[in-house]
Amino acid sequence: MSFVPGATERVDIHLADRSYPILIGTGLLDDPASWAAVPTATSALIVTNTTVAPLYVETVRRAIGGRFRQVHVLELPDGEAYKTWETLNLVFDALLREGSDRKTVLFALGGGVVGDMTGFAAASYMRGVPFVQVPTTLLAQVDSSVGGKTAINHPLGKNMIGAFYQPQLVLCDLATLATLPARELSAGLAEVIKYGPIHDMAFYDWIEENIDALVAREPAALAHAVKRSCEIKALVVGQDEREAGLRAILNFGHTFGHAIESGLGYGQWLHGEAVGCGMVMAAHLSQRLGGVDAAFVARLTRLVERAGLPVVGPALGAERYLELMRIDKKSEGGDIRFVVIDRPGSAVMRGAPEAMVREVLAHCCAA
Amino acid sequence: MSFVPGATERVDIHLADRSYPILIGTGLLDDPASWAAVPTATSALIVTNTTVAPLYVETVRRAIGGRFRQVHVLELPDGEAYKTWETLNLVFDALLREGSDRKTVLFALGGGVVGDMTGFAAASYMRGVPFVQVPTTLLAQVDSSVGGKTAINHPLGKNMIGAFYQPQLVLCDLATLATLPARELSAGLAEVIKYGPIHDMAFYDWIEENIDALVAREPAALAHAVKRSCEIKALVVGQDEREAGLRAILNFGHTFGHAIESGLGYGQWLHGEAVGCGMVMAAHLSQRLGGVDAAFVARLTRLVERAGLPVVGPALGAERYLELMRIDKKSEGGDIRFVVIDRPGSAVMRGAPEAMVREVLAHCCAA
Repeated sequence: MSFVPGATERVDIHLADRSYPILIGTGLLDDPASWAAVPTATSALIVTNTTVAPLYVETVRRAIGGRFRQVHVLELPDGEAYKTWETLNLVFDALLREGSDRKTVLFALGGGVVGDMTGFAAASYMRGVPFVQVPTTLLAQVDSSVGGKTAINHPLGKNMIGAFYQPQLVLCDLATLATLPARELSAGLAEVIKYGPIHDMAFYDWIEENIDALVAREPAALAHAVKRSCEIKALVVGQDEREAGLRAILNFGHTFGHAIESGLGYGQWLHGEAVGCGMVMAAHLSQRLGGVDAAFVARLTRLVERAGLPVVGPALGAERYLELMRIDKKSEGGDIRFVVIDRPGSAVMRGAPEAMVREVLAHCCAA
Repeated sequence: MSFVPGATERVDIHLADRSYPILIGTGLLDDPASWAAVPTATSALIVTNTTVAPLYVETVRRAIGGRFRQVHVLELPDGEAYKTWETLNLVFDALLREGSDRKTVLFALGGGVVGDMTGFAAASYMRGVPFVQVPTTLLAQVDSSVGGKTAINHPLGKNMIGAFYQPQLVLCDLATLATLPARELSAGLAEVIKYGPIHDMAFYDWIEENIDALVAREPAALAHAVKRSCEIKALVVGQDEREAGLRAILNFGHTFGHAIESGLGYGQWLHGEAVGCGMVMAAHLSQRLGGVDAAFVARLTRLVERAGLPVVGPALGAERYLELMRIDKKSEGGDIRFVVIDRPGSAVMRGAPEAMVREVLAHCCAA
């Protein structure tokens, strides 16, 4: 491991004129040098939530203050249940109330919900204004803040309304992970674990060896996990920004996971919890399709469990699971498509016989 | 004039992998050849309004039927007052209810409101699905359906929430203009007239000579007006898709016009009526800034009037006008920016002293 505590690591997303850096380090929020890539403008709006605001909003406001004549703050309610049009509209209301213009910069300070909503607001306000991702959860640092997917939920499906819209900068301050509730840390680890089976079994080995250090929030372990996750995500997104093909592998565990989230009602299980359990289910499906063996499934199940995540799906009933999965964004013509492991370290998107999916559901879910 | 009645004219928008054709002709809706560029998919959704649906929806449904397993229709209420999130959400509801996927094609059959909303729905549904513009008003054929600007209104400002998102095809069937109310025909002529002062005074001369023929809906005159307008718009959009600079000239008359629409409440004046009057006001401002002479202003005022459009602004009061114009998308740091004519056939975007804007308002608006 090359990580030097205190040093700032940089991962670049290469997307022609939409390229941008991800900065990873400890204490970045306070350091004016971290913000050098942010455009200057008349005004900025920091969008955050009621949980994160008291912890970090003044630090960010102070750090960016020199770049804007005015810096406004909007606190949204906290939680996936608020990832709705109604909440999004609070951002538009604030922007228009403050006389924001096309150069106004939005800052998403918080987890995945704040990032997804602020990103979609930035994509849509006046047809696009610049924005910066300041993820304060592990899940947002390793996944949702990187790559330009923005969205809100619709009552009939998760992330159904959104845009591909890239930020100017992603700033991952590892110090913010110290205040993260344990449940949210585990949720973030689900997305870290994901990168192993789909792309990098050496990283997967490293995660297994360091899972206790990660759960204990050892800074060097977290720094490596965030950096390697961002590198893999950058590689995939750089090849397929708009998910024409390859990028879909990042959704390993998400078809089952989204059904769990939507079926229970958003916010019952955290997104990362649903993805953790969803990966176990997708691994079982992969085994039935011949991509991995039973030992691989057992190994993944054990790792997900050690990360503090659920490994048994809720009892929604097979019909409800199938109904919810049919409206997944990867579906085509009503056929559900899954990301499955075709060999350890490699994933593909494909359909599966309904009878086989039913077997997986029967095997993996509570009765 | 090279127009042959019955022939299909084609204008291309050149935007790399987002390029597409505009087809212009009479009877195109019925002709299967018109739809050859439309992708095939499991399903399609025709979005239209309650006024247009009884006239053309069955024709379109029949013409595209062979390309989709299912074709659904959604009728929205008619009018600018419905260009809101609530109405847009009806499109998402319909898409999700029908199990639409990432390949589902949306068809916008109607005027500017249907086109802007359907385009934004297509941009946002699952982060982007293909769509086709089928404009049935003159305004939509010469302006709003071309160039990929999509949006909804916010109570505090017009077109404040949207996306740049290009269609696969724009199909302008001139036969649909026969059923257009006279007031809407005039509204469309405002956007036709616009192209003269900003880019092509020879076209402006032609419009003056043919304004009676246009108001009388002579097919050859309408065909030329639509084609030349689309050519100029294609030229401008091809150089500046996302309105970094040049494209703003297409908003000649729109700063004053948007203030009129918003100040009166959307739907009181048609968009084209507000733009017609707004062009007269912008011409007065241009004269005060030295770009054109009094004769030019008088000539434009006369043409707008002959097109059946208002030339005197409503009595909103100068303060209200200024307040509304400050939240225009072209504003920066609270300074209003106008598209003005710097010489006949050429436009620029610039600020203007507030005292001068007040003089224009005092001169051009009802007391």
